[in-house]
Amino acid sequence: MAIADDAHYMGRALELARQGLGHVEPNPMVGCVIVQNGTIVGEGYHQQFGQPHAEVNAIANCGDASLEGSTFYVTLEPCCHHGKTPPCTDALLKARPARVVIAQQDPFPRVQGGGIKILRDAGMEVVVGVCGDEAKQLNAAYRKRQKTGKPWVIAKWAMTLDGKLATANGSSKWISSPEARAEVHRIRGYCDGIMVGSTTARLDDPLLTTRPPGSRTAARIVFDSQASLSESSQLIATLDQAPVIVAVSSTARPERLERLRHAGCDLIICEGTDHAARAESLLQQLGERGMTNLLVEGGSQLLGLLWDQRQIDEVVAFVATKIAGGSDAISPIGGHGLTNMEDALQLQSTTLRTFGDTICLQGFTGFSDEQSLR
Amino acid sequence: MAIADDAHYMGRALELARQGLGHVEPNPMVGCVIVQNGTIVGEGYHQQFGQPHAEVNAIANCGDASLEGSTFYVTLEPCCHHGKTPPCTDALLKARPARVVIAQQDPFPRVQGGGIKILRDAGMEVVVGVCGDEAKQLNAAYRKRQKTGKPWVIAKWAMTLDGKLATANGSSKWISSPEARAEVHRIRGYCDGIMVGSTTARLDDPLLTTRPPGSRTAARIVFDSQASLSESSQLIATLDQAPVIVAVSSTARPERLERLRHAGCDLIICEGTDHAARAESLLQQLGERGMTNLLVEGGSQLLGLLWDQRQIDEVVAFVATKIAGGSDAISPIGGHGLTNMEDALQLQSTTLRTFGDTICLQGFTGFSDEQSLR
Repeated sequence: MAIADDAHYMGRALELARQGLGHVEPNPMVGCVIVQNGTIVGEGYHQQFGQPHAEVNAIANCGDASLEGSTFYVTLEPCCHHGKTPPCTDALLKARPARVVIAQQDPFPRVQGGGIKILRDAGMEVVVGVCGDEAKQLNAAYRKRQKTGKPWVIAKWAMTLDGKLATANGSSKWISSPEARAEVHRIRGYCDGIMVGSTTARLDDPLLTTRPPGSRTAARIVFDSQASLSESSQLIATLDQAPVIVAVSSTARPERLERLRHAGCDLIICEGTDHAARAESLLQQLGERGMTNLLVEGGSQLLGLLWDQRQIDEVVAFVATKIAGGSDAISPIGGHGLTNMEDALQLQSTTLRTFGDTICLQGFTGFSDEQSLR
Repeated sequence: MAIADDAHYMGRALELARQGLGHVEPNPMVGCVIVQNGTIVGEGYHQQFGQPHAEVNAIANCGDASLEGSTFYVTLEPCCHHGKTPPCTDALLKARPARVVIAQQDPFPRVQGGGIKILRDAGMEVVVGVCGDEAKQLNAAYRKRQKTGKPWVIAKWAMTLDGKLATANGSSKWISSPEARAEVHRIRGYCDGIMVGSTTARLDDPLLTTRPPGSRTAARIVFDSQASLSESSQLIATLDQAPVIVAVSSTARPERLERLRHAGCDLIICEGTDHAARAESLLQQLGERGMTNLLVEGGSQLLGLLWDQRQIDEVVAFVATKIAGGSDAISPIGGHGLTNMEDALQLQSTTLRTFGDTICLQGFTGFSDEQSLR
């Protein structure tokens, strides 16, 4: 079979996989296409965490037909261990395809090539790496968490055409168009957490809920070393809609912690003597809780802190065609910054979209050596 | 004749007119199309200041054919006064069209409806206002100067995706792509002046020449109240390539003025007790010198000053897909700024283009009640 055909069918499998975004995490998104005599006879993808994997869904999609001699296209190495569901390698051994084409090996420690070996030992031809880059990008967040234990960090902001996130006194509503704000809610809808800094929580008093609801309900997280979040905040008033996590320092005053706990907040104690260490501690703990995608919506100080520590993986920046002016207005990313502009980081795989009067530029930092395609 | 046809032929005349950009100023850009029996028989535009006007060029384009009974489409009311060339109304009276379709009346005091009256008195049908908005936008700079005496002010900047014009110490090379910088040189090529503030002149030591040369050679202008421009600057070192105007306060030290004059700079004394008044004085004087298009390339302080005084007509902002970070980095527009973000100015007639990795957003402030289409 021609290589062009392999890429074509794998492209379709990737398209299927992508539909799992927001539903399957902390699992990876996986798609599968079964081809027999040059025709697609079955398709499937991993639809929901805890539910059957892509291969099993694709086999079921074929009904009772024999799949002997067919070719399977799978975007990720089939699993060979008992997790929430039986190993996919068992299903393939039963279906007896002649060929299995795999986009990428699974970095999950209990798989990592083991699935490929089982299939080869059973006499199947196994090809690995078709559309490998696309498959890696698709599951960049999954791969980062496997590798580092931390969630994929998406930094989002909206600014004026003269680079202002807010006026000098923090006023920021609304810079971007309603269409752009709808896109933010779409992104929120597949994330596990939505984080802001304590100053933004105080000045904006945001809801940080997803409207309309997405495929998962993100925890709302305030990076708030001194546990300063007001009990009369909108976040706490809407605890029935989504959890609130307050990420505090171990030196925060106990009575403040008690008040927030009593109000219904979940507290994460971040160890470390400075903000950078506490941010690292927080990200590790969020990863341990199974979070795959974390959206950070500002403000300037928190984005600057994360930027300086190379903790940001993806940037989603909205630029409005409005002008604010003001030398004391606030810029999207604070922190230490650069001495020489030539050291500015060029984002990778950038995309440009328009949302009404607002444009959206998206790209990847490469800090955790992975990119994402959505 | 159908209105759709009128708009079609006027659209062609506007297209022709636009080719005069940078060649005809301080005259307006004008195009002319002559139609006989449903066919374009002649086209012309004002090609160069001091040379024949659009109507005369279009008539010449027809050769010896009789134009009696034809329709003329002209983007601006034909002139009726002796300027550098004889009145165009004379040429039309001789050609004897049945109909003259005009996009806009000429705001020039010695015309202002006089040309239209002459044609009507000669028995021609005269229609005014076809594609009127487009024609006004095309000559927004000409119209502003006629109305206010000041040149059209284009603010240009390049910033990172996190809104930085420069790092905290002023480093700014290079934010935008080579393709974007080529576009800046294209814009420079039709401007009469290119201005920067004294801090930018000191920190960047720019050339501000047009490379490759455009249709006119812009004077390089430094807004420099204290006449601080260094005699060893690149601007002064390249005086053989383009003039340098230093816009100074009347309180600048005389020996500094003398040094700059001796170095070959042209000095403009800006009256006024503050920067705002001096900027107004400068723009008036540049208008008196016949300048139509003034490009302001920064820095943040000068753009902020002009923004606060509503002196900017057009914005050309380049946004790179790079991140710099830094709470002390410099933002494109300084000045006083806003209290409430909801008061930010939405630019009009915005366009979006890409230049390599850099995007360009262009729009109009409406401050002098005119827009421009290029």
